[in-house]
Amino acid sequence: MSYGGIEAGGTKWVCAIGTGPDELRDVVTFPTTTPEETIGRAAEFFSQNGKVAALGIGSFGPVDLHRGLITTTPKPGWANTDVVGALRDALEVPVVFDTDVNAAAVGEQRWGAALGLDTFCYITVGTGIGGGVMAGNELVHGLVHPEIGHMLIRHDRERDPFDGVCPFHGDCFEGLASGGAVRARWGKPGEELGGDPRVWELEAQYLAHGVVNVVCATSPELVILGGGVMKQLSLLPLVRKHVDALLAGYVTAPPIVSPALGDRAGVLGAIELAHRAVA
Amino acid sequence: MSYGGIEAGGTKWVCAIGTGPDELRDVVTFPTTTPEETIGRAAEFFSQNGKVAALGIGSFGPVDLHRGLITTTPKPGWANTDVVGALRDALEVPVVFDTDVNAAAVGEQRWGAALGLDTFCYITVGTGIGGGVMAGNELVHGLVHPEIGHMLIRHDRERDPFDGVCPFHGDCFEGLASGGAVRARWGKPGEELGGDPRVWELEAQYLAHGVVNVVCATSPELVILGGGVMKQLSLLPLVRKHVDALLAGYVTAPPIVSPALGDRAGVLGAIELAHRAVA
Repeated sequence: MSYGGIEAGGTKWVCAIGTGPDELRDVVTFPTTTPEETIGRAAEFFSQNGKVAALGIGSFGPVDLHRGLITTTPKPGWANTDVVGALRDALEVPVVFDTDVNAAAVGEQRWGAALGLDTFCYITVGTGIGGGVMAGNELVHGLVHPEIGHMLIRHDRERDPFDGVCPFHGDCFEGLASGGAVRARWGKPGEELGGDPRVWELEAQYLAHGVVNVVCATSPELVILGGGVMKQLSLLPLVRKHVDALLAGYVTAPPIVSPALGDRAGVLGAIELAHRAVA
Repeated sequence: MSYGGIEAGGTKWVCAIGTGPDELRDVVTFPTTTPEETIGRAAEFFSQNGKVAALGIGSFGPVDLHRGLITTTPKPGWANTDVVGALRDALEVPVVFDTDVNAAAVGEQRWGAALGLDTFCYITVGTGIGGGVMAGNELVHGLVHPEIGHMLIRHDRERDPFDGVCPFHGDCFEGLASGGAVRARWGKPGEELGGDPRVWELEAQYLAHGVVNVVCATSPELVILGGGVMKQLSLLPLVRKHVDALLAGYVTAPPIVSPALGDRAGVLGAIELAHRAVA
């Protein structure tokens, strides 16, 4: 029995069929254009590659998980898109819908860094910052779903006068520490900034503040830090150092690690969501 | 069948036997003195008032929930106290041990403000600040348990040069916004500060920052704000106003309410923990 998975990003969609990292057939990636075209390509891909038992989707957001919608995204044409309905109608299989980061958390739990854990966080630091939270072996959904990128963190404007890039909150966690913030603050993207210690020391401090607040709010056994910004390899040890300093021994710092599945965590997690839905 | 509950505070213990708010027998309150004397009084109370099917304890912390210990408390004599072992030996019934705020969350879910909800937070703003988190109908435990009071929040030292009272972090959430912080900042406890708008406007802003971070991290359907500081009735509407302003419409603010069980949430929640353990 095979399962379908979609990592539905704002830039590209990754679709795959399989049962896990060692049995992943027919991976396809295409750009996110209009909803009709993008969802149509996904439907076509799954139709042409043999029956799947269920389909899991890890989506960019914000999403309405109850109704299966992408909601108030600024991405042109995508606001209030009924992704689940369209794919359920096309494929006639059960469709599970969650956030991209929740899907990645599930992938890491099933095959990656969080194997065997039931309470942990997956944080991705890319163009934006998102976070998936697993607690007691269940993804945290609640009123909507966690929006870790929009926590408010400390911002010393004397040291860093940058206003932040979040259109809603300015200098929230994402506004100060996302890849978009790095690019806007320093005038070029992180991958072109080399090992400049000013850049990564400041970035590590902001990431540590975000991690500390997640640790205090959810007491994870592990924090996974993924996303493009974390490809700067000097960053993870710096984040760990600052987390330890900020927690000051009162709260125990959990291990802070990279995703074991790398860029495949999302689509593999989507496959596992599908599996769990019908298992 | 009756259950026993203990709200084991750092100042006083409340012990009760019953099945709920309308059937609560034999409530007793006594000061927290030495571990031997305090645990002994609790054991004696339950021994003398008829058999309970199980005992629930909501304890001051920090606690080790796996081992049933109060751990690194600065309270003299109480570090590494085996509360669970002592009471299990004395009473020979199942004993469930959790944090005081987790117990209060359970009480509010069973009989109070969070009736029917499965993902919400209970935050108490008293001498310190603590928080219990329920997600997917399970208390969040994780590596240890949430320590919401030790999240880092924004602190504008030009407006509020106060250093904070947390011995570990100085100006963390608890360091800036607890009842202890109010007393230290203004020179007298909150209940003697009347309606001074400077006091409560600043307090509401700090509380709103903490609530916003909890909302972004755990997406609760409801936030319950209890504890002595919240007895200043002007505070709750101010907190709601600032939470809405800070979230700026991107993340939906959940309802923010007072505990429906008031000061009984802890001991009732402890009784419900006992009930759930053997139900």
